[in-house]
Parts: sequence; structure tokens; C-alpha cells
Amino acid sequence: MKKTFAVGIDFGATQIKIGMVNPEGKVLSRKVIATPRDISPLEFGKTAKREISHIISDSGKSGKCVGVGIGVPGLVQFDKGVVLYLVNVKGWKKVPLAALLSREVGLPVWVDNDVNAMTLGEFTYGAGRGGKNIVCLTLGTGVGGGIILNGEIYRGTSYAAGEIGHIVIQEQGRECACGGKGCLEAYIGNRQIMVLGKGRYGSPKEISDAARKGDLVAAAIWKEVGTHLGVALSSVINLLNPEKIVIGGGVANAGTFLFNEVHETVRKRAMKGPADSVKIVKAQLGEDAGIIGAAVLAGIK
Amino acid sequence: MKKTFAVGIDFGATQIKIGMVNPEGKVLSRKVIATPRDISPLEFGKTAKREISHIISDSGKSGKCVGVGIGVPGLVQFDKGVVLYLVNVKGWKKVPLAALLSREVGLPVWVDNDVNAMTLGEFTYGAGRGGKNIVCLTLGTGVGGGIILNGEIYRGTSYAAGEIGHIVIQEQGRECACGGKGCLEAYIGNRQIMVLGKGRYGSPKEISDAARKGDLVAAAIWKEVGTHLGVALSSVINLLNPEKIVIGGGVANAGTFLFNEVHETVRKRAMKGPADSVKIVKAQLGEDAGIIGAAVLAGIK
Repeated sequence: MKKTFAVGIDFGATQIKIGMVNPEGKVLSRKVIATPRDISPLEFGKTAKREISHIISDSGKSGKCVGVGIGVPGLVQFDKGVVLYLVNVKGWKKVPLAALLSREVGLPVWVDNDVNAMTLGEFTYGAGRGGKNIVCLTLGTGVGGGIILNGEIYRGTSYAAGEIGHIVIQEQGRECACGGKGCLEAYIGNRQIMVLGKGRYGSPKEISDAARKGDLVAAAIWKEVGTHLGVALSSVINLLNPEKIVIGGGVANAGTFLFNEVHETVRKRAMKGPADSVKIVKAQLGEDAGIIGAAVLAGIK
Repeated sequence: MKKTFAVGIDFGATQIKIGMVNPEGKVLSRKVIATPRDISPLEFGKTAKREISHIISDSGKSGKCVGVGIGVPGLVQFDKGVVLYLVNVKGWKKVPLAALLSREVGLPVWVDNDVNAMTLGEFTYGAGRGGKNIVCLTLGTGVGGGIILNGEIYRGTSYAAGEIGHIVIQEQGRECACGGKGCLEAYIGNRQIMVLGKGRYGSPKEISDAARKGDLVAAAIWKEVGTHLGVALSSVINLLNPEKIVIGGGVANAGTFLFNEVHETVRKRAMKGPADSVKIVKAQLGEDAGIIGAAVLAGIK
């Protein structure tokens, strides 16, 4: 039988990553390019077409490409393949991206929100494997979320479900960029973590490194971040009773400093039944999660 | 064609309600009995058998009974029909209630959590009709919740999903009966509403009546309750992007005093996309929601 693969594209505001992914979820070849400033849909289509043929020919592998999946940083009408808008990339309004790229490359194309794609990747090949009800978080500049229920991604009524970063943890809390108040993201977004460091550290990674070397201030920062995150996850656990919560993104690299506090907070605050039946684990696919998840969208498995 | 009906049983800690329900969701006949103190599973089976034949013969209607549905105040392993435990009724541990009652009455029997049953009732015949992603709340002594996603009830990994009353609204909030802290229920359960009244009123209903008559203190109580509820619902809306939230239970009778503040809080605090696509409405089936929903469990529609 001829080998199959899919192309996964992780379209970020700063980088576009393109990969060939096989049915085992392995990335056979990949390419990363800087995202041109305010790239237009047409320009994206041309770029994607060119880079897809490059990575396929460069890989030296032959096989049948089942399709192309794209994860984008914005709101997507999944069943129509239409990008309603992008965050941090101007000029994308109701763009029929699946149809546009499908015409260019002559393959079926699927488009979804980037965190949904990452969630599908972890669910199919990563830390969420074998589960049915999974919640995925990505901790970075913002706090993104994706939800798998009964084995399928749950997108909500207007494709906006999964905004775990905008679960309220403080009724009288600080203003959030979303226009609300007291949202999780307003406490544990990258910038807020740096504020907790009071200028001592250059990045969340430095705080993690310092904590590992015994820096008590750094450890205390992760304890505070872990408490806020644990409170929001207690709400998620009481509401959705998931079997697994998968945490990815740069901040997840704080490792046990962060995870211990999350576990402890959930143990103390979530209801016993759902708390006992949930595992909170680190994402496994790292930087490739977006590419692999996009390939899942395209039906590689 | 022979007419069909189902029997719905709403098993509460204080009352057991039994009804014959037709495929249009109408209750053809009903009976309410006081729940015997710490009723045993066997006793419940005998009682249910006796009362089912009474209401059928008393109704004077003939037809084919498709089955019996029961909503119970506790945790239910739905697919096995096993009651894992009940709240406020002692001695129920892993009771195979569906099998037990099915043997007694010679009909298929379905058992679920009472709020799930009520949610199914509102979804099928009440305020949630025609929707796909619906969240139901019942406001009373406690705050219960049920979730319909993609047209089906979502029960979670260990049948514990939907605990909207235990969404955290205050990270540093007051102790909750669940063992957690800052849960919605700790602010808007019946008892807390009475505390807000500082002894001026005899019941939440009195507070509603007073508000309608222009009592500003009473109106302020509902404003406070509505704010807390709106904050928790903002989290639900951002996470699940539902198209409808249906609010039932005695406290929902506070009407516009409560609902206006809930709408206002959601408008101010939830994200614009999901806030624009959700309707927050009052439940329609009132006291019959449990019976009707239990009949839906039994397959009346």
C-alpha cells in the first residue's frame, strides 16, 4: 500500500510552520518561515502552496497526501473553512481560506483555530491519547484552551468555545484585555508572570531555571501562578468532569514548581469525585503540536 | 395507532412526584407523595410500582407505556442505571435501581441525576427547545446544573459534570459546603439569599414580592445575587459558548429583578462573541420539569 501523509500548517502571527506528518503522528519534514507583516490571504495562499511543494520534494519521501490542515490564531467557522478574523494579523475578515488554498493546491483543506488544532494533536498523538473528555491549555502571552468531549472537539455555538483564559477567578479582580474583569489570563499571562518577578528575571524561562537552582523568589512566583491556575481548573473540573487536563505552552516548562501547586490547589478546592477522576499532565508534542494537530484536521489518522 | 406515554418519576429528598407523560410533553396525570424518611431501595421499588399502576388506572387513559424514567438527587452511573449515592437520603450505595425497578414493573427503566432530567425536560419541551448547546441551572437550596452539548446531555467522565454551583467566583472567597472556597453556591444558595435580607424577609419569594412592590432593599438583594450569578455565567459562556442558558428553580421567580442584572453582568464581563450568541431565559416547565425530563429519559420523544 502506498504510504500516506498530511500537511499541517501552524499559522502564527510571528512564524508559519509547515510539516509533513505521517499516520503515526511523526513529522517527516518541516519548515519554519517568518510570517510576513500583515500577510494577506492571497499571499498566504501562494506562500503555503510554494512551501508545501518544497517540503514534500525536500523530504525525499513519496506517498499520497490526504490533505492540508491549517491552525490559525483567530476565530474560524470550521465547517465552512472560513476565517472570521485573526488576532494580530490585520485584514482577515470572513476569508474562505479552505476554498482558497484548496484551489491552489488541488487537495482538501481544513482550517481551525490554532488551539483547537494543538488540542487535537495532543489528543490524537500526545498527552491526551486514549482519552474521551480532555481539556487542553496553552500558557504563553495569553492563555488558550481547547476541549474534547466524547472524543470530539467541542467548538461551541459560534466557534468560540474553550476560552479557559477568560474564566473568572476574582469577581472584583483586575481588568482583562478581553474587556472583562478578574480573568485567569489577567493573572498568569506571560506579562503578569514577569510583573511578579519585579524585574529580577528576563523571561518566564529564567524564572523556571532560577527556581530549579533553589531561588525561593522564583519558586514563590510559580506557586502563585499555580494557585491561580488551580482555581480556574477547579471550575473547569467541577463543570466538565474531564479525565485529563493537558497543559502546554512555554510556561508549562516550569515543570514541578508549577504542577505541584496546581495539583495541590485542585485537591483542596475541586469537588472530590471529579478531582479524583482527573489527571493533570504536561503536553508532549512541544513545538510540533500545531503542525501535528493541523495534520489531524486533514484526516491523517 | 395506539397512543404511547412514559412514566416520569422525580425522586426528591422530601417529595416523590410521579407522572404519565405523552409524546407532546404533556403530563396526563400526576401524583405527589411525601418521601418516607431514609427510604430504602426496595421500599422505593415497591412504592414506585404501586403508584405507577395507580396513576395509570386513575388517569382513565389507555395506551402503551414505553418505559419509566427516574431522576434522583445524587450521582448516577447512567449507562448502567446504578445509583452511586444519594444526597440527603441515607443508605443508597451502588444501587442497581434501573434493574431493580424494571424487574418490579416489567418495563425498561432509566435513571439519571435529577438536574440532568430537568435539563432534558427543558431541552425537549421547555425553554431550551430547538437548541443544540444548552446549559440549565436550578436555583434553590443549592445551585444545580445540567449541560446539553451537540444535542446530547453531557455527563462527564465520572457522571459528575454540570456542577455550575461550584464554579469559583472568588479566589479568596468564603468556604463552600463542597469543601472548596468561593463557589457560586456559597453566595446565592437560598440560605445566603436570606442572610442578605438580614431577617427582614421570610423566604426568597417574600424578597421577590417585596421587590415587585418597590422595596429597594429587596431589589438590591436581587442585584447582588444577579451579579454573582452573572460572573459565574460569564465563565460558563467563555468556556462553553452555549446558545442558551435556562434558569429554573424557586429563585428564578425573582424575574426581571434577577434577570436584568444577570444580563447586564454578562454583557459587561463575558467575551463579546459568545456573549452576543447566548440567550439567558427562564425555565418553562416549572414543577413538572423533573417528571417530564424523566419521561424523556424513558424515550417518550
